[in-house]
Amino acid sequence: MTREAAANGQLALLLEVAGTPKPGNVDRHRDHAGLRFEHFLAGAIGARKGLGMAARGAAVGDAFERAVYGMSQQEGGNTQFGCLLLLVPLVRSAAVAELSSQAVGALCEETTVADSAGFYRAFEYVDVAVDDPPEEMADLDVRRGADAIPTLTERGVTLYDVMEASAERDGNAREWVEGFPRTFREAELILKDDGPVSDRASRAFLRLLAEREDGFVRMTVGQEVATEVHERANAVLAGDENPETLAEEFVERGINPGTTADVTCAALFVALQRGLSV
Amino acid sequence: MTREAAANGQLALLLEVAGTPKPGNVDRHRDHAGLRFEHFLAGAIGARKGLGMAARGAAVGDAFERAVYGMSQQEGGNTQFGCLLLLVPLVRSAAVAELSSQAVGALCEETTVADSAGFYRAFEYVDVAVDDPPEEMADLDVRRGADAIPTLTERGVTLYDVMEASAERDGNAREWVEGFPRTFREAELILKDDGPVSDRASRAFLRLLAEREDGFVRMTVGQEVATEVHERANAVLAGDENPETLAEEFVERGINPGTTADVTCAALFVALQRGLSV
Repeated sequence: MTREAAANGQLALLLEVAGTPKPGNVDRHRDHAGLRFEHFLAGAIGARKGLGMAARGAAVGDAFERAVYGMSQQEGGNTQFGCLLLLVPLVRSAAVAELSSQAVGALCEETTVADSAGFYRAFEYVDVAVDDPPEEMADLDVRRGADAIPTLTERGVTLYDVMEASAERDGNAREWVEGFPRTFREAELILKDDGPVSDRASRAFLRLLAEREDGFVRMTVGQEVATEVHERANAVLAGDENPETLAEEFVERGINPGTTADVTCAALFVALQRGLSV
Repeated sequence: MTREAAANGQLALLLEVAGTPKPGNVDRHRDHAGLRFEHFLAGAIGARKGLGMAARGAAVGDAFERAVYGMSQQEGGNTQFGCLLLLVPLVRSAAVAELSSQAVGALCEETTVADSAGFYRAFEYVDVAVDDPPEEMADLDVRRGADAIPTLTERGVTLYDVMEASAERDGNAREWVEGFPRTFREAELILKDDGPVSDRASRAFLRLLAEREDGFVRMTVGQEVATEVHERANAVLAGDENPETLAEEFVERGINPGTTADVTCAALFVALQRGLSV
């Protein structure tokens, strides 16, 4: 089963949303109001061109912008912005260099101001829930979109710089600046696991959520809930909570651990590249 | 939301399997043993190159062979052979001519011996459940794969001829030779319907199954069951059966109305091309 890197990236997007249960996420059994399974399918279809650009060695910022534009061509709003932020450098690294923590880490470090401009332009296509930036970054609030580009240019802010500034709060940015440690670790665990891939994706998601609080939950519903979600994922791993029941409850309460889903998707991609059979 | 024809073809494959409930098919809530939701996702990813060839005007047989080869790169076996048989001429017609019953019907009529050779080669990649051919077609049993090509060539059998010979027994072949009447009719009903696309796909599937016995069910589990399935789909439309319960029962009994799913997929493609919003 040889599949090109861009196709594996797209398949990872699909396998991620099909991973069931992933408490709080859209999965095979659950939708959020206005954000449904079918929006993720259309988002994955739309992302293909940007992933293809990454595989052909395009600049990370350009490929990301194109992927997000394509992803946004559905009615559900933001489905896979965070997944694509992780997938684009991983796909590029797999296709034009090698797929290792060191190689993708170097690729991220080498990003330029042009890459951060692409990243900011991507916010023009879709509403992404974000925190207020730290005070010294106020001019570079991502919600300014392309309007921030003159400031980026003036200050010489690369995409790596942008990620570094958010790494403490944002789990995806942290993967970016640290060489994707959780992604590569979970990929190996997915490969060692057995059974249907959608079950493995569910287990990877639960391990990741039990390991660290989800930044998207903290941002959207607050610190207290983020702590609770983290603890209850640990209770699932300990066998004290049923993940299906938890999934029902979280969806009902509007709790969506999006960052954890993003890392799960990235790990599925690495696992596919390393021979995960579907 | 502009999406190219090949992307809409791929999205139709995904929306079809996500349509739930589709009694007897793999859907969001149900898998068959060894044939799971994730295999359909990987099949749709793999089909992209062949659908892209069709959109660029490649010969129907070549595009179909490439689509089936890509689709077959997953562990579930035959996921979408029948869907692709319908999608390839539809995608080609949409991209290079127009998407109408007349245009796609003409395209099918104009297929050549080279197209039937591509169709026969496609059987080399995946095990497809088929009936024994009529006696006069024994040399052209599709299970012979590429070995049948000398006979095809000698007798000048086009792909249209192959479909015509099977049209009485096989619902997909009948769509091919009649200008896709059920496909175009259901596309309009899907467009007029409302709510999530996965619900519309489920309703389209049930209407199609209630309209006509499924040839794949007849072939795999016999005439009696095919009649029962058809009658019970009518009972669902009349409100006398619960489609979710029926879906559980059919999957348990190994009843999989595959031809009806194929036409549902083709109708979703036409609806997407005509503006169905996801």
